[in-house]
Amino acid sequence: MTRIILDEQIPKKITISAARDFSAALIHKLFANTPKPIRPITEHLAKAQGKGVRTAVLLAAALDESEQVPKDTILAATAIELFHMATLVHDDVIDEADSRRGIASIHAKFSKKEAIICGDYLFCVATSTVSSIYEPYKGFAMKFSTAVERVCLGELRQYANNYNMNMNIQEYLRIIHGKTAALFFISAYAGALIGGADEQQAKKIGRIGTFLGMIFQILDDCKDYMLDESQALKPTKTDIAQGVMNLPMLMALIKEPTLRIANPKDLLTIDQLVNEVYRLNGVKDAIIIVEKYAKKIHKMIDTLGNIPKQAALQALLDSQIQLAESFKQQKN
Amino acid sequence: MTRIILDEQIPKKITISAARDFSAALIHKLFANTPKPIRPITEHLAKAQGKGVRTAVLLAAALDESEQVPKDTILAATAIELFHMATLVHDDVIDEADSRRGIASIHAKFSKKEAIICGDYLFCVATSTVSSIYEPYKGFAMKFSTAVERVCLGELRQYANNYNMNMNIQEYLRIIHGKTAALFFISAYAGALIGGADEQQAKKIGRIGTFLGMIFQILDDCKDYMLDESQALKPTKTDIAQGVMNLPMLMALIKEPTLRIANPKDLLTIDQLVNEVYRLNGVKDAIIIVEKYAKKIHKMIDTLGNIPKQAALQALLDSQIQLAESFKQQKN
Repeated sequence: MTRIILDEQIPKKITISAARDFSAALIHKLFANTPKPIRPITEHLAKAQGKGVRTAVLLAAALDESEQVPKDTILAATAIELFHMATLVHDDVIDEADSRRGIASIHAKFSKKEAIICGDYLFCVATSTVSSIYEPYKGFAMKFSTAVERVCLGELRQYANNYNMNMNIQEYLRIIHGKTAALFFISAYAGALIGGADEQQAKKIGRIGTFLGMIFQILDDCKDYMLDESQALKPTKTDIAQGVMNLPMLMALIKEPTLRIANPKDLLTIDQLVNEVYRLNGVKDAIIIVEKYAKKIHKMIDTLGNIPKQAALQALLDSQIQLAESFKQQKN
Repeated sequence: MTRIILDEQIPKKITISAARDFSAALIHKLFANTPKPIRPITEHLAKAQGKGVRTAVLLAAALDESEQVPKDTILAATAIELFHMATLVHDDVIDEADSRRGIASIHAKFSKKEAIICGDYLFCVATSTVSSIYEPYKGFAMKFSTAVERVCLGELRQYANNYNMNMNIQEYLRIIHGKTAALFFISAYAGALIGGADEQQAKKIGRIGTFLGMIFQILDDCKDYMLDESQALKPTKTDIAQGVMNLPMLMALIKEPTLRIANPKDLLTIDQLVNEVYRLNGVKDAIIIVEKYAKKIHKMIDTLGNIPKQAALQALLDSQIQLAESFKQQKN
């Protein structure tokens, strides 16, 4: 793979849903045409049902007054999704998770060795994809490198705090600001930039992305307490089992400091711990933080001065708020 | 880390030894100034004694008639060394090797999790470094992506052939063409390009790099049969223990097909296997292949029409030939 070039037949401006389809098709095409040694693995990956949340953020941020996005958004979205997949493949090796996005994880279906190399390879392809639009959008290429570094740093910071029952909320927010929100930032920033925003506006929209990412991660944490494996399309509670501190648990620990022992797993089973956090309203309290972010985002969206972009970003926010509401109501 | 910029005080043209020192200093500076979550790991990595073979190839390929190289070679060499280090960190996780370059491996000193993320992080920094010289040397950035993809593919191809006693020499050469020679190619190509060569000349010098990489890998394979751990600065024979097929073994298998059983480890200890391959002249026969490549390289060097570049590349070749000679003489 050298340079990734889009089909010339694709018009310069397209709708969001066309861009989303073209990006999915490009990933499928890349995965179907990889060199022989990696093809069985990428063909397997192509079966996964990714939600494409980062792509959705990127495209919403790129939307213009005519409700269209430039075709280059396809490449930027593809690069970000590929990098995201690379991190998932490596995460699954680290966490020894057996399934992901409804399919067997790479390390489970193939081997740890192949999973590590596959993640590296996906990272290479993501980098190639970014290179292919370096020239028109230098700012994206530079900030992409920074964003992916931040993802790694967030993951290290998280790891350093495993089983840290005294972790404060600020440290938690710093962790997810890196491990999750950095990619949401670059998605929103890239979309805005490709959609024609100047640097200042792109950074502003990038910050909306950051906060959407924070919400997304907090709600993802809540899923461990609310959904079972089939609903979440991945093993739930593995983070909890591995000592990863999440917001509902941190909230519960504030209310019940006696839970702050070296490792609550020594006293409780994972299911008991989950129930205890739930009983202490850990999820509801986490959602109060979500609502604070949602208010901030809503205000920021209102000042953008571009109705279709505002509507699209607000719709993404609304779907997160809706999920948060459902978690507030009752346990599934 | 966003953009990596060289000290303006560094002259535009410098000697090879200055460039080598500046690149080592840049890596040390990057490692000493990483963000807090990764700093203990990069500070540990900074203690490693890398040989900088790829840097040496890059600088030799960049040399001009005044025996100097452009300062941008520092960034290109740094990017390649960082990527190489990323692959070593991941390799050590895969192989569960405990030491590397005279220090404890990252996964041994820290954890598997941190080692995987650290490799990813180093890859990010390498990519940032490449981005920082994208504009003057687009060809390098594009070919760098391709080279790192080839490294991954070579490693996958190697893995697919573990314990494959029927593997032929051609497949072996294809594997090392990717896993090792691809980085030697990009080193030589980048050096030539930055040194002012046109695309055609840079590719030609790149091919010299490829062949030097093939020799380097074959001799590295031979070390498992010739050196002990302290001489090799890493655990020896782990590749053999893990079923990685190498040239001395393939050569021995041609002579003694009875060794072609599913897994010779079932019948022999690793030391017995090593001695058997040595007894069957596996090392000497592998060195015949090295000598064939050396002849090719020598001819290619002779046609370059730049005396200092020719002398520097020939010196690199000579040091490999010298190592090969020492292996031919006797077992250490």
